[in-house]
Amino acid sequence: MVARQRRLRILAETATLALEKALRDTARDVEEVLEMVLPADGGHEARLFDSMRYATLGGGKRFRPFLVVQSAALFSVSRSSALRVAAAVELVHCYSLVHDDLPAMDDDDLRRGQPTVHKQFDEATAILAGDALLTLAFEVLADPRTHENGSVRAELVAALSKAAGAHGMVGGQMLDLAAETIELDMGGITRLQRLKTGALIAFSCEAGAILGRASTEPREALRGYAHDLGLTFQIADDLLDVEGTIEETGKAVGKDADAGKATFVSILGVERAREQARLLANQAVEHLAIFDDTADPLREAANFVVERKS
Amino acid sequence: MVARQRRLRILAETATLALEKALRDTARDVEEVLEMVLPADGGHEARLFDSMRYATLGGGKRFRPFLVVQSAALFSVSRSSALRVAAAVELVHCYSLVHDDLPAMDDDDLRRGQPTVHKQFDEATAILAGDALLTLAFEVLADPRTHENGSVRAELVAALSKAAGAHGMVGGQMLDLAAETIELDMGGITRLQRLKTGALIAFSCEAGAILGRASTEPREALRGYAHDLGLTFQIADDLLDVEGTIEETGKAVGKDADAGKATFVSILGVERAREQARLLANQAVEHLAIFDDTADPLREAANFVVERKS
Repeated sequence: MVARQRRLRILAETATLALEKALRDTARDVEEVLEMVLPADGGHEARLFDSMRYATLGGGKRFRPFLVVQSAALFSVSRSSALRVAAAVELVHCYSLVHDDLPAMDDDDLRRGQPTVHKQFDEATAILAGDALLTLAFEVLADPRTHENGSVRAELVAALSKAAGAHGMVGGQMLDLAAETIELDMGGITRLQRLKTGALIAFSCEAGAILGRASTEPREALRGYAHDLGLTFQIADDLLDVEGTIEETGKAVGKDADAGKATFVSILGVERAREQARLLANQAVEHLAIFDDTADPLREAANFVVERKS
Repeated sequence: MVARQRRLRILAETATLALEKALRDTARDVEEVLEMVLPADGGHEARLFDSMRYATLGGGKRFRPFLVVQSAALFSVSRSSALRVAAAVELVHCYSLVHDDLPAMDDDDLRRGQPTVHKQFDEATAILAGDALLTLAFEVLADPRTHENGSVRAELVAALSKAAGAHGMVGGQMLDLAAETIELDMGGITRLQRLKTGALIAFSCEAGAILGRASTEPREALRGYAHDLGLTFQIADDLLDVEGTIEETGKAVGKDADAGKATFVSILGVERAREQARLLANQAVEHLAIFDDTADPLREAANFVVERKS
């Protein structure tokens, strides 16, 4: 019995180590692609290029890129294709952080332990840097180096634009701003999350299926996984906002409570929120039953999200 | 002799009337497409959708859409394809106006005679509306309804993202902000214009060639036309800033001089600037020599740009 428990613990630890290595590898590789696609050496517009690089390079868990790379691996997509799509998703994610941090929005001074873009540069530069990062994401996707088939490239653009736009991430941010003055219930918060963070996470998981021209069944499976993973991710984020420290998260904490915003934690309480996150993580893993052990990193990622400290 | 002059005048007046009708027709048709692709009827994010519609519908010359539709007509592209690309270009143009008008940027209160988006709504909503309009432009291009061939759709996305991004329009806006503190010479101002307004005008002219899968020669011709037209357009804009009234232009005038910014007019003077614009307009028309009279509206547009009053 003790031997079995010990074996299970070692297995779990091995899986966590493998996941951490996979995350680090993706982060390193996607950083290389970002470094390549980001503009450099401008004349009088150098400030724009510098701010774009500042907002994007040298930091972040690169969790969305990890999801792209791992979902692509399920369909034997070339790693270089996957990494370019991963870079595009990260560009969209980083642009959204730059704009969300602006004084007119969440007015944040810190991000990943560093001054936010408008603090390090200025507000106008931050607005333009975000605009240019978003635009660059579509340029990267539409480039023939991302996939040899034009329809696949166009499908990637279509899916990312839907996920990032008014019916996706931007709509979610608008809801989030509205949440400061209106009282959202569980349904409202779930919808907010599904738009604000869920849509981009869903695209990250679906991207591999698009690149691999996968059939309906695995696409649906990944969509189900992404849906539950996205919710898990947001509940974990709300828990961090309550329990995390500024040192761990590299950003201001306790902001939701200060703003009087309803969150999963304010409605469910810490214990039930954590329970709910664990439940959803397990549910996410169940969607992956049709895949072999190539999907293990995605399975492991669901646990990682629940336990994350930053 | 008098009879010949009279005939020429009538011909010129007929051409102007035809151009004005073509502009009105395009404006009406592209408005219909915009109406269709813009989001409506949101829940708590209705404010976002309203601001996107406010920024885009019911106004503007729709000059870029006109260029798309006319360049597409050269290659017998279906009008519905052309109008969708025209709508995408207009979405990008309108997003750029919303963000450029923000307090942190040009800080303008009026646009097309109406309060700017951040005045009518608020700053956060204006930032998000711009983000969502830009994203929507790529969604429209990537949609199979825009063109049946995926490679054509991907090429449109690639070309528009390059024109709109850090090495295009956004880079130009950054240069424009820098121009408040650095002194630009003619080369610098020409480069600023080429990026800030020229790149999107060039895409508008090139879009028809992409849609029509045109060969190199007509593409080059359109590129040459667009280059000269873009410069003409900017010089005319600088002239309007000096000579126009707020009633004619629907926006604040005299801003460049107030900001101490170098423009074509401040360097060349009014007379030489107007002369230069006429020269460039003629040069633009010469590029179109390889086309038959299908290109007449584009030829006429070059004159229209020089003479425009708003």
